Amino acid sequence: MTRSITYTGLRGIPMVRPDDDLVSIIADGLTSAGIEVASGDIFVVAQKIVSKAENRYVDLDDVSPSARALELAKTVGKDPRHIEVVLSESSEVIRSRQNVIIVAHRLGFVMANAGIDQSNIDQGHSHRVLLLPKDPDDSCERLKSGLDQRFGVNVAVVMNDSFGRPWRNGVVGVAIGCAGLPALQNMIGEPDLFGRPMQVTEIAVADGLAAAASLVMGQAAEGQPIVHVRGLSCQAPAKPASVLVRPKEQDLFR
Amino acid sequence: MTRSITYTGLRGIPMVRPDDDLVSIIADGLTSAGIEVASGDIFVVAQKIVSKAENRYVDLDDVSPSARALELAKTVGKDPRHIEVVLSESSEVIRSRQNVIIVAHRLGFVMANAGIDQSNIDQGHSHRVLLLPKDPDDSCERLKSGLDQRFGVNVAVVMNDSFGRPWRNGVVGVAIGCAGLPALQNMIGEPDLFGRPMQVTEIAVADGLAAAASLVMGQAAEGQPIVHVRGLSCQAPAKPASVLVRPKEQDLFR
Repeated sequence: MTRSITYTGLRGIPMVRPDDDLVSIIADGLTSAGIEVASGDIFVVAQKIVSKAENRYVDLDDVSPSARALELAKTVGKDPRHIEVVLSESSEVIRSRQNVIIVAHRLGFVMANAGIDQSNIDQGHSHRVLLLPKDPDDSCERLKSGLDQRFGVNVAVVMNDSFGRPWRNGVVGVAIGCAGLPALQNMIGEPDLFGRPMQVTEIAVADGLAAAASLVMGQAAEGQPIVHVRGLSCQAPAKPASVLVRPKEQDLFR
Repeated sequence: MTRSITYTGLRGIPMVRPDDDLVSIIADGLTSAGIEVASGDIFVVAQKIVSKAENRYVDLDDVSPSARALELAKTVGKDPRHIEVVLSESSEVIRSRQNVIIVAHRLGFVMANAGIDQSNIDQGHSHRVLLLPKDPDDSCERLKSGLDQRFGVNVAVVMNDSFGRPWRNGVVGVAIGCAGLPALQNMIGEPDLFGRPMQVTEIAVADGLAAAASLVMGQAAEGQPIVHVRGLSCQAPAKPASVLVRPKEQDLFR
C-alpha cells in the first residue's frame, strides 16, 4: 500500500471581493478541477482571499499616525500611516530597522509588518492595505462548517501566509488558522522505531501543510489561492493554529 | 489543466547501514511502489539515512569532553561527551539552558544539538550518536548523479531534517541539502497580479519540499525516510541548500 499526499491548486478562482462567499468559490473551483470532496480532505486557503472576503481593508487616507508611528516610520523608511496600522495590529515591536519591522501580531504570530502588505491588492486603491482576518482560526472553523454542510463531509481547513524566518533566507508558508485537524500533533511518549521514547515531542502539522500548499499556490498567491489536499491521515484531536504560538516566556529569541 | 504536486512515501525501506548504496535502496523502493521515475521528479531523503549510509556515527566511549563541554553539560544537563560532540560540529553556541542547546552548525544551520540525537539509532549501541553528513549538498549531488545515471533521467534531491523554530511550537521539516533544483527561488522584479513589484523576494522552495515530505515520513522517519515528489515545476537555476543560510551579519536574531 503506497501512501501519497496530493496537493491540487484550484484554478480559475476569481478575484475575491468583500462579502464574497468562499464556500461557493471553493465549490466552483472543485467542480472545475473535477474533484469530489471526501471526508478527510483538507483545504489550504491563502490569508489574502480570506482577508478580502472579510473586508479587512484599511484606507491609509483615514489613518492619523501617532507620534510613535511617526518616529518608527523614520527608522523603517515607510509611510507613517502604514506603520500606524502595523502598530494597531501588534502587541509588541520585536525588531525595527531600515525596511524591516518585525512585530508580535495581536494574535501572537511574530512576523514582518503584522502581515500587512500592499502587493496583490487591486490597483486604483493604492492607499489601501489589507489586514489579517480578525480571528483566522474562527474563519477556518466557519469555512469548515460551510464546506461540511454543503458537501455532507468532514473536512479540515488551514489558512496560510508567507513568513520570513530568522537564520534562513527566503519565505515559507506558515499556518495562521486551522480547523478540523491538529495544528500541533503531540508525540510525547510515542516510542521511536527502537522503542526509545521520542526526543522530538510535537509536530507542527498545520505549518507543514501550509508550507507545502505555498509551493502550489506560487508566489502570486491570488492566481491559485486555494489548495485541495488529500491523503494526510490525522488521528489526533483537532487543535487551532493558535497553539502554534510559543508563549513569550518560553521563547529564547525575543 | 489541474496542477497537482504528489508526495509518495516509499514503503519497506530497510534499515540503512554504513556503506549501503542509497541509489539501489531508492530504486528498490520505487519498484515496490510501482513508480517509474521521470525527469523533473524530486526525492526528499531523511538526513538520518544519509548519515547512516555515510557512517557518521561517533561512539561516546571514544570522546573526551573538554573543559568547556564539562561546563556546558552542567547547564544543559546532558552527557558531557555528547556536548563535546555537539561543540565539535558547531561554530557557535547560540543559546543554552536546561535541556536546550542551540548552536550554529559548522554548515551554518542554526539548530538544536547540532542535529545530533539518539532517537532511531539501533539498540545495542546506546553510546552511539549520529552526526549530520559532512556535506549534505554534496551528498544530494551524488545521489542525484547516481539516480540520473541509473534511470537516464534528470531528477532533484533534497535532504531534510526536523527543526524547531523560534516563536512557534512544534518541529517542521527543513532542507539541509539540495541538488538539481533552486533551494531558494528569486522573485525580485517579478510583478504581482496587478503589476506592482513583489515585496517578497525569495521563496525557500527546498524548505517547502522538506516540510511537505516530513508530513509523509511521519515522525518515526526511518519508517518511510524517502519521499518521491512529482508535479513541482521549477524553471530557475539549481542552487544548493547552503544558500538558505542567512549570513550572520544579516541576522537580527542571534
